[in-house]
Order: sequence, then C-alpha cells, then structure tokens
Amino acid sequence: MIEERNEKDDVQFDEAHLREMLEAHNIDAFRDEFLELHPYDQATFYEKVEPDIRKIIYSFLSPTEMADIFEAIDIEDDEYKAYLAEMDPSYGAEMLSHMYADDAADVLNELDTAQRESYLEMMDEEAAEDINELLSYDEYTAGSIMTTEYVAIPENSTVRSAMAILRKEAPDAETVYYIFVVDEEHRLTGVISLRDLIIADEDTLIRSIMNERVVMVHVGDDQEEVAQIMKDYNFLATPVIDDKGELLGIITVDDIIDVIDEEASEDYSKLAGISDMDKFDVTPFQAAKKRLPWLVVLLFLGMLTANLMGQFEDTLDKVALLAVFIPLISGTSGNSGTQALAVAIRGIATGDVEEHSKLKLLLREAGTGLMSGIVCGLIVIGIVYFWKHELVLGMLVGAALCGSILVATLAGSFIPLLMHRLKIDPAVASGPFITTLNDITSILIYLGLATVFLSQIG
Amino acid sequence: MIEERNEKDDVQFDEAHLREMLEAHNIDAFRDEFLELHPYDQATFYEKVEPDIRKIIYSFLSPTEMADIFEAIDIEDDEYKAYLAEMDPSYGAEMLSHMYADDAADVLNELDTAQRESYLEMMDEEAAEDINELLSYDEYTAGSIMTTEYVAIPENSTVRSAMAILRKEAPDAETVYYIFVVDEEHRLTGVISLRDLIIADEDTLIRSIMNERVVMVHVGDDQEEVAQIMKDYNFLATPVIDDKGELLGIITVDDIIDVIDEEASEDYSKLAGISDMDKFDVTPFQAAKKRLPWLVVLLFLGMLTANLMGQFEDTLDKVALLAVFIPLISGTSGNSGTQALAVAIRGIATGDVEEHSKLKLLLREAGTGLMSGIVCGLIVIGIVYFWKHELVLGMLVGAALCGSILVATLAGSFIPLLMHRLKIDPAVASGPFITTLNDITSILIYLGLATVFLSQIG
Repeated sequence: MIEERNEKDDVQFDEAHLREMLEAHNIDAFRDEFLELHPYDQATFYEKVEPDIRKIIYSFLSPTEMADIFEAIDIEDDEYKAYLAEMDPSYGAEMLSHMYADDAADVLNELDTAQRESYLEMMDEEAAEDINELLSYDEYTAGSIMTTEYVAIPENSTVRSAMAILRKEAPDAETVYYIFVVDEEHRLTGVISLRDLIIADEDTLIRSIMNERVVMVHVGDDQEEVAQIMKDYNFLATPVIDDKGELLGIITVDDIIDVIDEEASEDYSKLAGISDMDKFDVTPFQAAKKRLPWLVVLLFLGMLTANLMGQFEDTLDKVALLAVFIPLISGTSGNSGTQALAVAIRGIATGDVEEHSKLKLLLREAGTGLMSGIVCGLIVIGIVYFWKHELVLGMLVGAALCGSILVATLAGSFIPLLMHRLKIDPAVASGPFITTLNDITSILIYLGLATVFLSQIG
Repeated sequence: MIEERNEKDDVQFDEAHLREMLEAHNIDAFRDEFLELHPYDQATFYEKVEPDIRKIIYSFLSPTEMADIFEAIDIEDDEYKAYLAEMDPSYGAEMLSHMYADDAADVLNELDTAQRESYLEMMDEEAAEDINELLSYDEYTAGSIMTTEYVAIPENSTVRSAMAILRKEAPDAETVYYIFVVDEEHRLTGVISLRDLIIADEDTLIRSIMNERVVMVHVGDDQEEVAQIMKDYNFLATPVIDDKGELLGIITVDDIIDVIDEEASEDYSKLAGISDMDKFDVTPFQAAKKRLPWLVVLLFLGMLTANLMGQFEDTLDKVALLAVFIPLISGTSGNSGTQALAVAIRGIATGDVEEHSKLKLLLREAGTGLMSGIVCGLIVIGIVYFWKHELVLGMLVGAALCGSILVATLAGSFIPLLMHRLKIDPAVASGPFITTLNDITSILIYLGLATVFLSQIG
C-alpha cells in the first residue's frame, strides 16, 4: 500500500481504527497494524491520544518498541516528563536503556536530579554509563548532541572483516553509512563510507582505502560550528574526539538539522523580542506571561524617552509642529538600525564575521548609514517643503533624520559586534531593544537641533 | 595526516603552497595535493584565488574533476556566471555534463536564456535532457530541488542482484543509502535501505523485505513541505513522483538543509525589513541600494503618520506635554505587534498554523493583547502619577497604551494570517511595515482620545 503524503496533516494511519483496537484490547490486531507504521507516525498517534489510551499502549508494546516511539518525539516537546510519569518506573527505565544514548540523555535532561538518578540506577548499567557521560557535557557543545552508537573498526581490518563487523553492529548503530577507523589507543585515524566499502574488493586492507583526511570536531566545540561544518561538507555524520584524539562519538545529520532549526528560531525570536517562540496551543495567559517581561523592560526604556522629551517641553511648547515629525524620525532610524542589526547578527551566526575585519564592517555600515541618511533626508526636505511650504523646518527634520539614520546604523552593527567580542550572545541585543535605544538618540538629535536653532533665532 | 577542524577558518589546505605549484606550472605536484582535498576545501581555494590562477586550474584539471568543485560551491553564491565565463565554452559544457543534474540546473538557472541554450546544446545529450526536465519545474517545488541520479531496482530482484546494480551505479548516484523499488511502469512500489540490504540474506527477494509504506512527495509540492517531512521522519532521501505514481527523482538531505537555511534566512530578513541578506564583502553603495527601497517606502508611510499627527496640531498646541508620550505609546505597541507577527509567521512557516483553528489563534492573541495592554497601561498610570503627579494625563496615556497594544497584537497576527489565506507570502508583512502601521493606529487612538477629552472639559 503506497500513500502519498501531500499535506503535512494527512497522516499515514487510521487513528479511529487504532483507537478501536486499543479500547477493545485487541492486542494482536493493534500490534500488526501499529508496528508497521513509521516511528514518526507512531509518535504522532501516541501524542494525540489520552493518557488512559497511552496506558493501554504501554501494556501492548515492549520497552524496546516504546523506545523507537520516544526517539521519534520532537525534541522541542517538553512532555517527556509527563509521559514517563505515566509508565511503570521499571518499564520507563528499560525503555530508556533501549534508546540511542543521545536521545535518552535529552529525555533525562528534562527531569529533576533525583528522578534522573533514580532512572539511571534502574537502567541497564552499560547504557547508564553512556548516558552519564553524555550528560556531563555542557549544553550547546558537540558533546551534548553526539551519540556513542557508531561503528569503529581497527586499522588493519580487511573490507571483508569490516563488513562483518558492520553487519553485526548495524541494528544498534545510529548510522552505518560512515565507518570510523581507529588505532590501538582508539584514536581516530581514518574514515570510510559504506559506499566505498561495498564497491571495494573484499581482501583490500581498510588502511589502504580509508580517507585519512578526516574532518572532525572537538567534544567542546560549539554546536553551531559543528552545524556549519556539516553543512559545508555535506556530511551525514561527523566524528567527535577528545584532547588526546580519541574517538568519543559521532554527530548525525538529523541532530544537526534540529540544531540549525533551533538556532534560526532563536535568532528570529530575539529579533522580535520574545524570549522563546510560543507553541500554538498555549493560553492567552501563558503567552502574555512570556511576552510581558520584554514589553515591560522596553516600556521602562520608553519612559526614559518620555522623560528625555520632557526636557524639551519648552521647545515643543513654542513649535507644536515639531512633534509631528518625531514618529517619522524615530521610526525611520529604528528601521535602519534593525536592518544593520539583522545583518550583523546573521553574520555572527553564520561565522561570516570571523572571516572579515570588524573595522571594515563598521566602516561599511557607516558608509551605508550616511548614504541612506542623505537620501532619506533629501526626500523629507522635499516633502516638507511641498506639503507645509516650510523650508527651514524641512531642513531641520532632514538633518536630524540623516544624523539619526547614521547613528542607528552604526549602533545596529557596533553593539552586536561588541557583545560578540565580550562573549555575550549578540542576539540579546534584540530588535526592539536597539529600536528603543535609537528612539532615544534620534529624539535627542532632533529636539537638540531644534532647541539650538530656536535659541539662535529667538 | 589527521587535522582537527576547530575554527571555521583553519582550512585543511596550505593555500600558499597550492598557489606556488600553480604559478610554477607544476601540474603533477599540484594534482597530487589538490585532488586529495575534500571538494569543499577545493571549492574554497578555487573561490579564493584570482581569475588568472583559476585559468591555470582549468588547464590542470579535467572537466570531471572541475565538476566536483562546482558542486561544492555554496548555492547562495551567484558567481557561477563569472566562473563559467572564464572557462572555454566546451570545457564548461563538459563540466556541466558531469555534474549532478540538480546542481547543474542550479548553475544554468543563473544564466540568461541564450547562454543556457548554448550550453545545453554543447552538452552531453543525456545530461542535457535530465537538466532540461529539472529546469521545467517551478522554483520552490520539490521538482526544482530533486535530482535524477538515484538507484532504482525492479521488484523481483534478489538482494544479490540489487547489490550488483548498486555497486555498478554507486559512482554516479547522489545517494546509495536508499534503493527505490519500481514496477514495470517505473511506478514506485517500495524502498529499502542499504543498511537492511547488507544484513539480509543474499537470496532473499527484495519484494519480501522492502518497505511498502513509502513516504513520498509529489513533484509539485512546496519545498518547505518536503523539508518538514524529511525533518519529521529523519530521512536521508525522499522519492519524488508524478501524478501517475512514477518515480521522477529523489531529494537528498543536503539539499533540504539548504532549503531550511534559506527559508529561515528569508523569514529573518523580512522581519528585519531587508529584501535579502547582505554578503559581508559588499560596498556601502551596494548595501545602501538593497536597504534603501524598504527605508523609503516606510518613510512615505511615516509621512502619513506625520500628516495624521498634523491633524491634531490644535490638540498638541494646547497641551505640549501630550507629545512627550507619543514615542512611548507607538514604541510599545510596535513591540507587541512585532511579537505577535513573529509568532504568526513562524507558525505559518512550520505548518503549525494548519493544525489549529485560525479563529482560536486570533482569540488567543486578543486575550494576550488585552492582558499585556492592561498590565502596561496600569504601569504607565502609576509612573505618570508619581513622576508628573498627573492622574488624568496618566489615565489618558494608560488607556491609549492599552488600546494600542490590543490593536497592534491583533493586527500582528491577523495580517499575516490574511495574507497566508490570500496566498501572499506572509513574511512580506515585515516587522517594520507592521510597526509603521501600528504607529498610525496608536497615534490615532492616543490623540483621538486626548482631543475628545479636551473637547469635553474645554
């Protein structure tokens, strides 16, 4: 039976039918149909049904079968904890033992320390050891996303013996498409793809056909760097080594896709001023709770702007028309600042910024800001002159706009570069934050210019 | 020789040495060292050197060897055209014939029609046919990113004969890790992974061990949908079929990573109000040229705001203090609008929005906006009261802020949903655009309320 999967939502299983079989406790029929499904579809069904139904699933499936489902649950979901609580603890521990170590570590990371320890104690000893090792690496490092289920062979194997090892380890390994070659000290010395292996003569020595120029990463490397390398080289897996060059694990492409997605989503959220992206099924209260902290911080910054403008009350009192252009000036400089900010943050995220001189980038942005400022300034002078027939006011607004855009563009690139240098995540300098800062500088420039000008003629 | 690749930039080759050998026309030594490199490193070197040096490379490498380099050039780069122009046309055509059809189609897509036709005519006929087919699919569809170099076997093969086909086709196929099973009409009927193949008995019939529940995509499907499916199912490759169920090609995970990256970068750029992300090596003039169109459009929208505020000149003339709170109100409502916008656009991009009722989302956002508005409004009333001792003014600012946040949050989610329904790319409703719209509504609410209030007491 072949089904086409056109829409994200026309899942490949008959939900009602699966439910029926579970409710009727028709174990054989359920297992026949359910175990035929792809683990992603199994996980989708598992997450859709109610806890009562899930409890029947636990009684119908072995911990090993359940492990496949758990591996397929989207790692963004933090519902692991609730699911585990539904299971018998020994069933849960056995399931964790049968998961890939990196996935099991992700699950255990969601639990509090006491729970984590209790599961680790109940688990298969070897699996618990692997997981404990993975748990010891810092978040966002290569170590935290690697898996220890890889296929390694000694240098002096032949293709035949390598294939034999591969066949034996295939059911447990996370990928069999790269085989890693190690010396007696388990130091990585080469790599060979299954593609090369199957076309090689069976008696060939691995040493003579393996690729010795292995691109590898260190266990402490940042996960973003690893993602960049795997993307550049189109790797399906990358080996991870320690300081002594010993092979510790591998990182597979599916984990890297998650990293790329996660990091892009993070940069995006920060640009929009939300700490992390809402799920679609949160309540208004939960959504407001997430967004309000940023709004309130920015509100206080906004009060500073109001306070600052209050200093110019006399000037505004004299010429009320001045106020009319404030949103225009602060809005336009905010926009140019956000543009510069996005370019800088993206450049830092992709690593482009490392390849270029920061001074050169700032000079480039200064030039860009000046040019944009002059063009926008001239347009505004023209509009104000033709609309209000006020040449002097127009020139005042135009000059303030030009200066504000220049400052905003510079700030938009300088601040994230500075934060990057100070090892602070530059995405913290989010869009709204830079925009509010630019509000302050643009109002200062505009009303300052106006006050000086009024005092000259007045 | 094993090298660790810690920094994105410590490339795995000796640039100076490679240059020397080229300049000394030392062809054998250069080939020995250069062809040992990973294609990505070869491409990095190739792109770094000057056109003169590249011309020596063309004379040292065969078109087939050059094809590997061209495949490894980052698809974001639009320098294909310049590189091709450096080559002898017949050399270029032969190189294109040896590239994977999807990569060659990407290169040819950058050329104008006449050039493209001339290369296709000079090329190997079979390769040109494959490429012409790929060029016929719309951009952003599954067809446009698929490749036609896959391994297909008849249903009634044995594992032994399948392995024989695989060994023969491995050098040309883009991936050998999935083998696709077809019937006499070339309709896709199953799939088997190389992993399963190597552990199966040699005499087993493929039909009896293949997976019949193939997740496949239609040639006209959107590339984002395909990316989502491959991410969910952790596939390394997905088959592409036409209306009749015939296998047309496959999409491999490396192309999907590019799609995910591209789409994330696009959403991000749009939120920041830039048509597309600057490279780091553009001149200030080029950068300004890209950013100015948005700035100028928004400047004209900003003039509308100024015009609108001009209507309230009398009100502002009466109470100059009113103007002081305008940046605060428009800034805060702009921020909440951007938050709502980012959540909606991301939800549309990930397909989450399809799974949920749009009305429910809008009601959620209305609730979120109301709650955020009330909290921010109360804070402002408090601050204005304690700072300026103006309770009435505080209540006016607070009420306007609350209303503006509510409207901005609703607009931030409604506008992208509407655009999505109308099949317009919702990311066009970019951050700065929504912010400027919110400027207008918030000023209208604030100064409107103030005018009504003044007319009541005045």
